[in-house]
Amino acid sequence: MPVNLSAPDPASLLPVPGVALGIASAGIKKPGRKDVLVMTLAPDSEVVGVFTQNRFCAAPVTVCKEHLHGEAGIRALVVNTGNANAGTGQEGLARARRTCASLAGHLSLKAEQILPFSTGVILEPLPVEKIEAALPAAVADLKPANWAMAAEAIMTTDIVAKAASRKVALNGVEFAVTGIAKGSGMIHPNMATMLSFLATDAPVSCEALEAMLRHAVNKSFNCITVDGDTSTNDSCILIATGATAAPVIMDDGDPRFTSLQSAVTEVMVQLAQAIVRDGEGATKFMEVRVEGGKDEAECKQVAYAIARSPLVKTAFFASDPNLGRILAAVGYAGIADLDVDRIRLWLGNVLVAEKGGRAASYQEAEGARVMAAPEIAVRVDLARGDTVATVWTCDFSYDYVKINAEYRT
Amino acid sequence: MPVNLSAPDPASLLPVPGVALGIASAGIKKPGRKDVLVMTLAPDSEVVGVFTQNRFCAAPVTVCKEHLHGEAGIRALVVNTGNANAGTGQEGLARARRTCASLAGHLSLKAEQILPFSTGVILEPLPVEKIEAALPAAVADLKPANWAMAAEAIMTTDIVAKAASRKVALNGVEFAVTGIAKGSGMIHPNMATMLSFLATDAPVSCEALEAMLRHAVNKSFNCITVDGDTSTNDSCILIATGATAAPVIMDDGDPRFTSLQSAVTEVMVQLAQAIVRDGEGATKFMEVRVEGGKDEAECKQVAYAIARSPLVKTAFFASDPNLGRILAAVGYAGIADLDVDRIRLWLGNVLVAEKGGRAASYQEAEGARVMAAPEIAVRVDLARGDTVATVWTCDFSYDYVKINAEYRT
Repeated sequence: MPVNLSAPDPASLLPVPGVALGIASAGIKKPGRKDVLVMTLAPDSEVVGVFTQNRFCAAPVTVCKEHLHGEAGIRALVVNTGNANAGTGQEGLARARRTCASLAGHLSLKAEQILPFSTGVILEPLPVEKIEAALPAAVADLKPANWAMAAEAIMTTDIVAKAASRKVALNGVEFAVTGIAKGSGMIHPNMATMLSFLATDAPVSCEALEAMLRHAVNKSFNCITVDGDTSTNDSCILIATGATAAPVIMDDGDPRFTSLQSAVTEVMVQLAQAIVRDGEGATKFMEVRVEGGKDEAECKQVAYAIARSPLVKTAFFASDPNLGRILAAVGYAGIADLDVDRIRLWLGNVLVAEKGGRAASYQEAEGARVMAAPEIAVRVDLARGDTVATVWTCDFSYDYVKINAEYRT
Repeated sequence: MPVNLSAPDPASLLPVPGVALGIASAGIKKPGRKDVLVMTLAPDSEVVGVFTQNRFCAAPVTVCKEHLHGEAGIRALVVNTGNANAGTGQEGLARARRTCASLAGHLSLKAEQILPFSTGVILEPLPVEKIEAALPAAVADLKPANWAMAAEAIMTTDIVAKAASRKVALNGVEFAVTGIAKGSGMIHPNMATMLSFLATDAPVSCEALEAMLRHAVNKSFNCITVDGDTSTNDSCILIATGATAAPVIMDDGDPRFTSLQSAVTEVMVQLAQAIVRDGEGATKFMEVRVEGGKDEAECKQVAYAIARSPLVKTAFFASDPNLGRILAAVGYAGIADLDVDRIRLWLGNVLVAEKGGRAASYQEAEGARVMAAPEIAVRVDLARGDTVATVWTCDFSYDYVKINAEYRT
């Protein structure tokens, strides 16, 4: 069951001027289920994205990149669940392009102005006719206050819909930042994969928006892991419609840049943590903070070694303060000149290890108390520098094996 | 349950002239259980070893490295289970040295002529008095035909004892190569860890023995994974007693070098595969062969990405030919310029994927037939070179979670 996570209150999700959302049922996997989302964007919206690094990237990812690099401004997004259109070769690309062309026809746009997204089973042909048949209903449903329904429409193995929103005042003008995400693990190549769409009505240049996206992703979606697998379809899109009038934020020299970037980052962190809280089989939410590194990269390397270890994750499932497994993960994280005698390790606020072994002050009952909670903080001080990185993950339970062993049955 | 693995027939394990083995019960973890092994070696035996890369390496690993680099020839090994003497700081080093000194007293040797090994729980002080009290019984038990008992004495979470033996004729003189191993995963920082001891009575120079060890480990223990964690205690020791008279094999220019190296490698591969077959919770044995790489390193990188993926391993547990998960693992293995359209993937002899998607000839029933067997071969052709690497692993079952969640209870 999701850890401290419930569906968002639709009233808490601010509409974003310049964005309308429409939902429909194409019956891709199950009849009657909402599985198609269309988003339309005001003219001159700036749109930037980051995508999976997996070499087996899905057809829609390839088409997205083409269209984002094109001259025609992006004016709409189309998302389907139930089929990832990945591992589908040339035919997959053709079907992704046909989906764009069909929606373009309904909206009087060019196909190159549409970004396509798919999530679901891979290696199966995309049922493009079903999606095309559902587009008129999705277009008829387009309205600005549809974020909560959109968050539901893009769910796959997710138990809870994921959405977040912030209001930000920039030089006295109020703007909205609203986003949705889906994904029940950082990666589920066969079924889930991570998708996220955020929009603001603030006017932002493409370059500034790109910088904000990279910063926010690095502090959010790039800090989570459920199972360490990297999907074929991961996509995160940030939109600035500029529909609310104000001078354009050109770059980070504009004092408003940082305020808006903070709001975007907050929304993205909330969505990223929601994915971990709803991780497959999750019963615990863990924050792994590594400090005292020479640079952020080595802090993240150590944090991920801990957060990915099946041995650490099963110990957290069992609420067992099995310190040795955490220290061993620190030891094999790949820092060749690490001095293990200087490392300190805390569970919550309890110092559990120092000087290469268990801390003299440590009482097992104290560790057990921290481990019994649904949210657990692990902190490691490498004592070799002054940088920090934080990673979020969930535990590894019987249900993870069950969900993934039985997925296709 | 172990996959196609049963305890070795003691009669099949050749004694190695120059090696005697003695077993005793120190009551380290459970009363009455055999948990201490002493091996003595003929004077002038050559001894070489490889050890864990984990920065949190255990105290006995540090002491082993010191003694191997010393001037005094190694004449005995002492192994205990039930406690890993890892994460124990300066006191751990002192206790490992004291164990060596005690055994040296019984055998009229110097402490520097003893190599110590420990495996079991980490972060707990080594009960050195219990080990010392058991040494006289172990020494009294020393005999050449004790390999099977020794394999049993070093078990921890292992279900089945692991030993293998080969006879090799070099220029008409027959030599034995016999080895034992323990470990129920490549790494189990808290309990298991991998230990292996091999000996031959052939006379081999230190340099030649070192070369043989590195070659054999690279083709065996460095080709397995159960959970991807790297232990604090992993050690593999190769001994050449030279107790059977023959000219010394000085280097790989000696035609006998290759024959002996092959025998050592065969024994090590059998032991390494036995560890995977007895992997925690294993129900399937998988061989992942990646060919057509630019170099062996990239083949191994792809093979490990597949073999480590929890999604792949749970699919194998379910006997589900979930090809997408394997392709996704190939895609995220980290080869930046990989052309996924050229990759071909087989399950057993069935071609399942090519040209970026499912093979036209593939029938799901064929894939399901391969997956139903207890031993499954996965083969990937990267089509970008002519090197090959093979990795062995097991599936990921409910029992893996159970064993590791409940280990300390």
